[in-house]
Amino acid sequence: MSVATAKAPSEPAKRRERGGRNARREQRSHGPEAHGRPYITRNIPTYDILSEDNLVRIEATADRILAEIGIEFRDDPVSLDHWRRAGAKVEGVLVKFEPGLLREVLKTAPASFTQHARNPERSVEIGGKSVVFSPAYGSPFVMDLDKGRRYGTIEDFRNFVKLAQSSPWLHHSGGTICEPVDVPVNKRHLDMVYSHIRYSDRAFMGSVTSESRAEDSIDMARIVFGEDFTDRNCVILGNVNVNSPLVWDATMTTALRAYARANQAAVIVPFILGGAMGPVTNAGAIAQSLAETMAGCALTQLERPGAPVIFGNFLSSMSLRSGSPTFGTPEPAIGSMVIGQLARRLNLPLRCSGNFTTSKLPDAHAMNEGTMSMLAAVHCGANFILHSAGFLDGLLSMSYEKFVMDADFCGALHTYLDGVKIDDNQLALDAFREVGPGNHFFGCAHTMANYETAFWDSAIADNEPYEKWEAAGSVDAATRANRRWKTMLAEYEAPPLDEGINEALQDFMTRRKASMEDAWY
Amino acid sequence: MSVATAKAPSEPAKRRERGGRNARREQRSHGPEAHGRPYITRNIPTYDILSEDNLVRIEATADRILAEIGIEFRDDPVSLDHWRRAGAKVEGVLVKFEPGLLREVLKTAPASFTQHARNPERSVEIGGKSVVFSPAYGSPFVMDLDKGRRYGTIEDFRNFVKLAQSSPWLHHSGGTICEPVDVPVNKRHLDMVYSHIRYSDRAFMGSVTSESRAEDSIDMARIVFGEDFTDRNCVILGNVNVNSPLVWDATMTTALRAYARANQAAVIVPFILGGAMGPVTNAGAIAQSLAETMAGCALTQLERPGAPVIFGNFLSSMSLRSGSPTFGTPEPAIGSMVIGQLARRLNLPLRCSGNFTTSKLPDAHAMNEGTMSMLAAVHCGANFILHSAGFLDGLLSMSYEKFVMDADFCGALHTYLDGVKIDDNQLALDAFREVGPGNHFFGCAHTMANYETAFWDSAIADNEPYEKWEAAGSVDAATRANRRWKTMLAEYEAPPLDEGINEALQDFMTRRKASMEDAWY
Repeated sequence: MSVATAKAPSEPAKRRERGGRNARREQRSHGPEAHGRPYITRNIPTYDILSEDNLVRIEATADRILAEIGIEFRDDPVSLDHWRRAGAKVEGVLVKFEPGLLREVLKTAPASFTQHARNPERSVEIGGKSVVFSPAYGSPFVMDLDKGRRYGTIEDFRNFVKLAQSSPWLHHSGGTICEPVDVPVNKRHLDMVYSHIRYSDRAFMGSVTSESRAEDSIDMARIVFGEDFTDRNCVILGNVNVNSPLVWDATMTTALRAYARANQAAVIVPFILGGAMGPVTNAGAIAQSLAETMAGCALTQLERPGAPVIFGNFLSSMSLRSGSPTFGTPEPAIGSMVIGQLARRLNLPLRCSGNFTTSKLPDAHAMNEGTMSMLAAVHCGANFILHSAGFLDGLLSMSYEKFVMDADFCGALHTYLDGVKIDDNQLALDAFREVGPGNHFFGCAHTMANYETAFWDSAIADNEPYEKWEAAGSVDAATRANRRWKTMLAEYEAPPLDEGINEALQDFMTRRKASMEDAWY
Repeated sequence: MSVATAKAPSEPAKRRERGGRNARREQRSHGPEAHGRPYITRNIPTYDILSEDNLVRIEATADRILAEIGIEFRDDPVSLDHWRRAGAKVEGVLVKFEPGLLREVLKTAPASFTQHARNPERSVEIGGKSVVFSPAYGSPFVMDLDKGRRYGTIEDFRNFVKLAQSSPWLHHSGGTICEPVDVPVNKRHLDMVYSHIRYSDRAFMGSVTSESRAEDSIDMARIVFGEDFTDRNCVILGNVNVNSPLVWDATMTTALRAYARANQAAVIVPFILGGAMGPVTNAGAIAQSLAETMAGCALTQLERPGAPVIFGNFLSSMSLRSGSPTFGTPEPAIGSMVIGQLARRLNLPLRCSGNFTTSKLPDAHAMNEGTMSMLAAVHCGANFILHSAGFLDGLLSMSYEKFVMDADFCGALHTYLDGVKIDDNQLALDAFREVGPGNHFFGCAHTMANYETAFWDSAIADNEPYEKWEAAGSVDAATRANRRWKTMLAEYEAPPLDEGINEALQDFMTRRKASMEDAWY
């Protein structure tokens, strides 16, 4: 049988034209999945690619790095005091850890916790079988097809918060979704946190670029959630990077400790480009990542035992030809899977990075690398997937088009992570009895009973026949995405926010801003 | 640390500029991986997503479909005789199978076999841990950025054979790589098989569109490999489709039996679009696929016990909105993984489908769906991945640009399937000792010793910084791919072919063509 002759169905297609997609969208916007799900509970196992004995060899290497080479904790005497009291060997700023010490400290860290959203229906579980998609983080530039690449502004920032809020397939509002460079460096954290609270009702992340900015972020969360509630529950995350290789600087450790002190979750992320901040061999980079993350996670427990913390990782490689970073390549995808196994052996929630690419356009290159990278993140068992939507251009640009493409792919991953359901209805023996050999399933009772929920329905893919697609203008995916983000922004509705809280937040910002001179670098 | 400030390295980058990429390419074209590897031996496990008890439920459903509903074998009395002798219940053309019957018959089928190429260095192993990438198959149209979409010709066919031969990352020449519609329907199999032999030295596939065309294909292989060798070894594959649901027609069963009779491998493939040729629920479609494939595989063993055969599958879904087929969606990706588990329980080599999409352009949509689909094929343990490169437009168009993009991704998958190597050099403890905290790995001894083989180096991705990319013309991936296939065709060199064999093949074709009137449909 030639696949080319597969006929289009008539019966359900017609029915769908009447009720069809609009009805389904309608249902989505009113039903239990009105805004998607608060997070995914995976129904397929993690993809464990490395054997027990090889995992043990990586752990042993991490242990030797920690014991024999050590990690520097620069310019933060409090951290050094913590390590001394914990029994580590402190030589100036260099700290060495006997095997087992960090694992012992880490025992107080929770395996799973809830990050509360101001809309309780959108609180996310981080750990176990949960998967939370969060937008990309940290790019100085933004891009779209109309205006090209330029520095991000607070308006762009708000737009991306609104797009994330509007997508049924993202679960989290993210953090520095792009850098708003039109706001002074020392004040922009206030505007960013405010935008997450004002334009989204999802969980979000605060600043980590200094201890006081971390504390400002947490104070704003306290205004929303109350001091007591905040002290007992996680309501804000802070994403802190190791200064790899093997250095934690004071900016990061003081921010990390600020989050832990407030019982909020730090996300501990070595950023390792193999060949630059780590070895060119994957196994070594993984061992390094494990060592650096364990130290950071343990530091949160010394600051406040029991504080939530997330085991993060960010492995990538370099083009040894151009010297540029590469992303979405096979080595970090494989590395993520191993990191996932290692994190589970520590019983910690896992953060991985999602959708990466070096492409400067929302093109084939972008989605090839992005899809590989994102699938590695979901396969490895990541509970919190930062950078799930928007990145192009290494990590330098947030793209409006890529954002909606990626969010759409996050939707596909909801279906993917549901796996295969097995029950009598799904196994469909009665359908085979009804239809029999050589007939089609278009109008059969089983199809009619199941088609509404049957298949993932992408908002970006064009599945029409070539002639119909051509007649409609031969539009490519990037152009469809361009139209889609504009529609999403036009249709965006702000979630309600208590006016008292809004005023308190604005008072706080005004007061804090008045206390500082503008700083632009 | 801001990722934006990651500095470019100097030392290895400079060295690479001197020797660098050209040296590496040089090495590739002369070293042991001159043409890549003959096939991949996977070093990561398969991704098994379904539990034992759920696999048993699917198998039980397949068994009930086979026993209670049955499969029709139309217009092929020999097949019905085979089934009668094997103990199946034959009611007219409907055949019903007691549970266990097909599994018993299948015990003679090899778990793994070699398909010989005319260049012995390119023979492929099919089964076990081997992975073989083969181009897309069966599209009536071809596309490129310059001329758009048009019917395929024999010149296009030859071009794609040459491109596959030129790619170090494909392992097989494929079969109906596109339909050469400028050659009469009843003669084109001769030109296609000849093109594979003449322009490639890799293993290939023959025709299945009638018994005599299958036999012609096998006869041409006999000219190349000798009658005795061909009778004892697999030298050609034939890809046969079930006329799902639950019908095998005579075109396919007679072709299937022709391959088996000659001790050549039939690939048994139900083509099931859920909602059309199968139920809309994934579990049911998987059970159906298992039932149909088991029956086809078993028929090869009744024709000739011990003949090689490949357990195939092709699950996809339909847009129940437009009635169009969809490809590269999450349901078939998940389905492939389950099919892989089922095939291994039968101890048969597995074929899956690679790189699918409904996109009409080599754009973001194409590579998002294609990458998801291709990764499912490698994760599920497929040994022979048909449609690894080229498809766009459902299954209707072979794209020159997509072909080289996909082939490049096949290259990335070589690195991916190598997994993580664990040894002292890879774990790099000495590198950490050498570099220490806070320094970089650019010029360290470990980097210098390992960077040549360190990272996957894509020929399609552009990893350059934005400014450099912009200065070079802001070229997208599709345009880079367009340049690349032209270069590959310009640089193509035909592999040597024994002149006696060439003449014998041409004599055979002339004689066979002279015996037929042209048929155009």
